[in-house]
Amino acid sequence: MEKKVLDKGYIKLLKGEKEDNILKVASICYGRKIETFDEDKKKFLLKKLMFEHAGNPTSSFEFVNFLFEVKCPIFVARQWFRHRIGSYQEISRRYVKDNLEFFIPEDLNEKLKEEYIKLCENCKSFYEKLVKSGVRKEVARGILPVSLYTVFYWQVNLRSLINFLKVRLDKHAQKEIREYAKTILELVEPYCPIVISLLKEKLEIE
Amino acid sequence: MEKKVLDKGYIKLLKGEKEDNILKVASICYGRKIETFDEDKKKFLLKKLMFEHAGNPTSSFEFVNFLFEVKCPIFVARQWFRHRIGSYQEISRRYVKDNLEFFIPEDLNEKLKEEYIKLCENCKSFYEKLVKSGVRKEVARGILPVSLYTVFYWQVNLRSLINFLKVRLDKHAQKEIREYAKTILELVEPYCPIVISLLKEKLEIE
Amino acid sequence: MEKKVLDKGYIKLLKGEKEDNILKVASICYGRKIETFDEDKKKFLLKKLMFEHAGNPTSSFEFVNFLFEVKCPIFVARQWFRHRIGSYQEISRRYVKDNLEFFIPEDLNEKLKEEYIKLCENCKSFYEKLVKSGVRKEVARGILPVSLYTVFYWQVNLRSLINFLKVRLDKHAQKEIREYAKTILELVEPYCPIVISLLKEKLEIE
Amino acid sequence: MEKKVLDKGYIKLLKGEKEDNILKVASICYGRKIETFDEDKKKFLLKKLMFEHAGNPTSSFEFVNFLFEVKCPIFVARQWFRHRIGSYQEISRRYVKDNLEFFIPEDLNEKLKEEYIKLCENCKSFYEKLVKSGVRKEVARGILPVSLYTVFYWQVNLRSLINFLKVRLDKHAQKEIREYAKTILELVEPYCPIVISLLKEKLEIE
Repeated sequence: MEKKVLDKGYIKLLKGEKEDNILKVASICYGRKIETFDEDKKKFLLKKLMFEHAGNPTSSFEFVNFLFEVKCPIFVARQWFRHRIGSYQEISRRYVKDNLEFFIPEDLNEKLKEEYIKLCENCKSFYEKLVKSGVRKEVARGILPVSLYTVFYWQVNLRSLINFLKVRLDKHAQKEIREYAKTILELVEPYCPIVISLLKEKLEIE
Repeated sequence: MEKKVLDKGYIKLLKGEKEDNILKVASICYGRKIETFDEDKKKFLLKKLMFEHAGNPTSSFEFVNFLFEVKCPIFVARQWFRHRIGSYQEISRRYVKDNLEFFIPEDLNEKLKEEYIKLCENCKSFYEKLVKSGVRKEVARGILPVSLYTVFYWQVNLRSLINFLKVRLDKHAQKEIREYAKTILELVEPYCPIVISLLKEKLEIE
Repeated sequence: MEKKVLDKGYIKLLKGEKEDNILKVASICYGRKIETFDEDKKKFLLKKLMFEHAGNPTSSFEFVNFLFEVKCPIFVARQWFRHRIGSYQEISRRYVKDNLEFFIPEDLNEKLKEEYIKLCENCKSFYEKLVKSGVRKEVARGILPVSLYTVFYWQVNLRSLINFLKVRLDKHAQKEIREYAKTILELVEPYCPIVISLLKEKLEIE
Repeated sequence: MEKKVLDKGYIKLLKGEKEDNILKVASICYGRKIETFDEDKKKFLLKKLMFEHAGNPTSSFEFVNFLFEVKCPIFVARQWFRHRIGSYQEISRRYVKDNLEFFIPEDLNEKLKEEYIKLCENCKSFYEKLVKSGVRKEVARGILPVSLYTVFYWQVNLRSLINFLKVRLDKHAQKEIREYAKTILELVEPYCPIVISLLKEKLEIE
């Protein structure tokens, strides 16, 4: 499952687990192992577990895991990696010199956009010249703008993911990472329809 | 997959992932996506990734996940829960009053063992009396010995799991938790044969 | 600074930092370094930083640290150690055999209380007998009830501490750990008067 | 205490704690509280605690804390922030548009260096033009190269710091972050002379 984001980015959902895990795992607290739940009971319990901890999800939400592949500009990745509960593996510009693509902001006027693209191209050309003349790739990359696209794997559990969504869907979040957060929400929804609908309600998202 | 540990405990492996994940995920660093590896290359790379970080596994090991159900004495669980990178969900004696079983040390002589069992039974009876007379379960349990068996789910990634094994297989670890660590090792081995064989070599385990 | 909790427990505040750190650290975001703030501005900014992250404190709250020494029953410590963001160092019953004290619930009637105390004493005597007859201390302790007092150091930052307070001051928390949470609140208050008053307001505590 | 790093960077040690904390805290395990140690005993114990956990420091090392202010290129910061156990607070280019400085690699020949500097200046000028023409600062910055200097606070405990040093002093680490790691080592040494000397011995650093 892949969704496009921004001008050249994407998010692929590589692995996902269902919200039923939350209930299966939580039921051990009560000394029972429950495998199936009727729909109403499920909603009732998930709501309770989602807001019980001072408005935040309980630890049972950690047992639902997701793996994403993300392509985004470096300045977005830098905000993303501030979320420390989760695992990251990123393409390394110490080893890879190809596939240099840049995010071009859509809200520039034509003239500025042209200039923006041209300057990115200049940086790219100079980078290639540096590498060719024997400069270490990890030093040469210093000249590449932070709008450069990077690619990484992100493994995260639902508890940490909900926190990510709350922070990055917020109207104070930068527009570009908000686009990614919205896409994460859409990709997770089929796996966790009740949890995501509770979250939308809380965040007043349509 | 379930294995018995101590006199009444067990570990069940509920979910496991294969060590191939490590290589798939690590390959993104180098801008390649590799799906298959020949055996020798695999061994070579896993060894490198396992000891590269100052003798410890790199972050790519976080992308191999396990879920266990563990039944062990409370004093073992207390040592286990000190490992903070991982998720836990435990049976709660605030809600559950049944299935009270105690670990009886095998290395006591007959007389002491008998006395041990008898005292556990006294505690259990008094606990039941307290509950019956209306004392809150979570207060009544105060009288139950730490040899009481508890049950919990443990979700952990391979990086944190290797650290757990290094610490708890060590000859300084308490014998009882060492039994559990050995069992974890056996359960993980079929999923990660190369990694586990490297670990055994390092720890000088046969 | 030491405060008594329950019948034989206590919390000592060994080190604390002031809430001004939050503002000093946060000001780097804005490219300014501010050393002093007038009181109104301070309140305004702390309130913003405390609830900005989807109702939770931002990362600047991690720069205010506390160190406590806690004496509490094992069953309380077990709930406490579930809070993974923080550091713990605990007395070890593998090495220490003295100072065995038990929490005696105050809400038992006289007869039950007497019986409770007697049973604790029996367990303690049998433990000492086991140790004397050469059983490893860490095995002998299996017979000691979870009402046994333990002692540990807890180092925690204000962000994680606020989460602890929200969860453990909640009316659903067990009464005994709530007593400890209240005491933590009182000990932290002189260091972080504005933050604690905002928290009390939010949690509707007088 | 401030030390220069690279062409325009620095590290300031803002707060530090002494290695004696490790022993004070560890002594609680053994039911003793020790305030002073003779030098030989101290060395013996610190060595034990430093390598006891499968060659890694035990949790008592978490009770020694440091606060640094770091100025480094973005590409160095990106490697730094991968270390998730610790707290970060960084200058934000969503709010700050001044003080744009770039790391200029010293190992370029004169002609390439000149071109490098010129291109950085072009990016900077265009950035300023974008901001002036009303483009959001956080979008305009997309054109700034990753050699741009950033500033952040880093709070870290000694256990995590040792791991950082092992990984970033390694000969496989990028030269630029190695310069920062060496400086961290020098700044920490007066606070933790024994620990740092043990680390140097292990890493075979003079």
